Amino acid sequence: MPVNLSAPTAHKLLPVKGVKLGFAEAAIRKLNRKDVLVMTLAEGSHVVGVFTQNQFCAAPVLLCKTHLASGSPIRALLVNTGCANAGTGEDGLNRAKLTCDALAAALNLKTEQVLPFSTGVILEPLPADKVVAGLSAAIANLTEDNWLNAAEAIMTTDIVAKGTSRSLTLGGQQVTVTGISKGSGMIHPNMATMLGYIATDAAVSQAALDSIIQYAVNKSFNCITVDGDTSTNDSLIIVATNQAGNAEISELSADFIALRDALTDVAIELAQAIVRDGEGATKFMTINVQGGRDEDECRKVAYAIAHSPLVKTAFFASDPNLGRILAAIGYAGVEQLDVNALKLYLGDVLVAENGGRAAAYQEEQGSAVMKESEILVCVELARGDAACTVWTCDFSYDYVKINADYRS
Amino acid sequence: MPVNLSAPTAHKLLPVKGVKLGFAEAAIRKLNRKDVLVMTLAEGSHVVGVFTQNQFCAAPVLLCKTHLASGSPIRALLVNTGCANAGTGEDGLNRAKLTCDALAAALNLKTEQVLPFSTGVILEPLPADKVVAGLSAAIANLTEDNWLNAAEAIMTTDIVAKGTSRSLTLGGQQVTVTGISKGSGMIHPNMATMLGYIATDAAVSQAALDSIIQYAVNKSFNCITVDGDTSTNDSLIIVATNQAGNAEISELSADFIALRDALTDVAIELAQAIVRDGEGATKFMTINVQGGRDEDECRKVAYAIAHSPLVKTAFFASDPNLGRILAAIGYAGVEQLDVNALKLYLGDVLVAENGGRAAAYQEEQGSAVMKESEILVCVELARGDAACTVWTCDFSYDYVKINADYRS
Repeated sequence: MPVNLSAPTAHKLLPVKGVKLGFAEAAIRKLNRKDVLVMTLAEGSHVVGVFTQNQFCAAPVLLCKTHLASGSPIRALLVNTGCANAGTGEDGLNRAKLTCDALAAALNLKTEQVLPFSTGVILEPLPADKVVAGLSAAIANLTEDNWLNAAEAIMTTDIVAKGTSRSLTLGGQQVTVTGISKGSGMIHPNMATMLGYIATDAAVSQAALDSIIQYAVNKSFNCITVDGDTSTNDSLIIVATNQAGNAEISELSADFIALRDALTDVAIELAQAIVRDGEGATKFMTINVQGGRDEDECRKVAYAIAHSPLVKTAFFASDPNLGRILAAIGYAGVEQLDVNALKLYLGDVLVAENGGRAAAYQEEQGSAVMKESEILVCVELARGDAACTVWTCDFSYDYVKINADYRS
Repeated sequence: MPVNLSAPTAHKLLPVKGVKLGFAEAAIRKLNRKDVLVMTLAEGSHVVGVFTQNQFCAAPVLLCKTHLASGSPIRALLVNTGCANAGTGEDGLNRAKLTCDALAAALNLKTEQVLPFSTGVILEPLPADKVVAGLSAAIANLTEDNWLNAAEAIMTTDIVAKGTSRSLTLGGQQVTVTGISKGSGMIHPNMATMLGYIATDAAVSQAALDSIIQYAVNKSFNCITVDGDTSTNDSLIIVATNQAGNAEISELSADFIALRDALTDVAIELAQAIVRDGEGATKFMTINVQGGRDEDECRKVAYAIAHSPLVKTAFFASDPNLGRILAAIGYAGVEQLDVNALKLYLGDVLVAENGGRAAAYQEEQGSAVMKESEILVCVELARGDAACTVWTCDFSYDYVKINADYRS
């Protein structure tokens, strides 16, 4: 079950002026479930995206990059679940393009004004005919208040739909930010995650939006891991529809930081929601590494802990077998690490220092923290000022069950 | 259950002239199990060792390195299970030294002639008094034909004891090689593994033995992974007792290759035995990566596949969800990888080429291979002549169960 996470109610997801959403049940892999999402964007919208660094990136990812680079204003997004259209070669590109062609024709756009996204099983051909057949139903129910249906339409092994909104005032105008995401397994994003969409009606320049998405992704989706597997399809899109009536925000505007932080805040909540709904998750862990020489070595330590199957199973068992964390720190690859100088905390409890167990540490203290559903692990490397935070979940029987059964 | 692996019978493990082994039940963590091993080495023996690169390496590992560097001839090894004596700081070093002192006194040796080894839970103090109390019983049953008891005495979560022997003729003399190992979880050795001991009665120079251990470990223990966790205690020791009567072998001797290969062969069998008995293992996978620009990039690809929880759970389920392997290849970190040039084989079956599923591939072919207990995954990168092989096991419910319950 997701860790301290429930689906948002429909009225909690605020409409964003200029963004309409429509869905269909297209039977791509399973019957009677939403599996196609269409989003249309008002004229004048700015769109930015970041995508997986996996070299086996999916056909829709390649096409997204081409369409974004074309210079044509992006006016529609098309998402399908049930098939990732990854590991599909030239044929996969053709099929992805065919679905963009069909949506463009129906909306009176050019093909390169549509961005395609797919998620599901890798190495299987996209049933493009089914996606195309679903378009008319999706277009027929396009409305601005369809965010919850949209969040449901992009789910795969997710247990709950993920979305959140913020409302703020910029330049005297009410501005809304709403985002949705999906993802539960194959989660170790590298520059983006497995499908996230965030929209705002704020007026913001393309350059400012480019800057914001890099900032936001590095504070959010690039800080999570479920299983260390970087997906072939990770995509994060931020849309600004320019409908709120505020003066256009540039990187030099007084309002730039406020908008950036609101978008980043939404990105963090969506990223954490993916971990809370990580496959088989029963606990949510925050790994905080401080005192490193640079952020890179802090990330190495944080991810060594977050990816260790032994650490993750110990958290599942609420077993304060904390030597496993020391072992992970030790193999993280930090040069000239002084193991006698570092400190390990579990919650507020000092567990290890001087190369070993802290003198005052009592196992009952560790046990008490391990029983919580939200656990903070803090490592103080004591060799510099850099820091980083990574969020992850534990490793349970259900992780194995979900991934042994996923295709059946 | 271990994959195609059963414990050796006592008579299959050939005595090595000059090596005696004795064990005790010292109740270090549990009652009524062998948990202390003493090995004595005849005068004139040469000993080499390689140890974990984990920076949180255990107190006995630090002491082994010091004793090996002291120049005093090593004459005894002392192993305990039930406690790793890692993450124990200065106090851990003192306790390890105390056990060496006691064994040295009993055998009339100097402390630095004893090498200590520990395996078990990290971050707990070694009950040195219990180890010392067990020494007299272990010394009382020292014999040359005690290899199977020795293999049993070093087990922790291992299901079966691991050992093997080779017999060969060098310089007209019969030479024996016998080795034992243990390890089942926290297995991703980096320069050595979680306790392996190989002995030969051959006469061989120290320099030749140094060369052999590096060669052997890189072909064996450095090619395996169970869970990607590099232990704090990995140690591999090779002993040559100089009792077989052959002329001393140097690196220039005609017999050097034969001895090196026999020792390496034993190391490979012991390393593979650890994977076959990997925690929760139901399948044994050989990951063979060819056609790389250098061995390093081949290893990156092989380990990305071998460590992916998604790949490992698919193997557990016998599900040919092979896109997960492509995803792992794609995030392995190989620069400028041409995904359209590489080929993926499962057994003899060509699964993927030209960036996607091979035209002739049928799911039934993949299913048939996945049902086997021994599976070969072959990746042809088609960009050079380098290659490497890694052995691993699948990821099952029992892995979670074992590691959630390990301390209880």
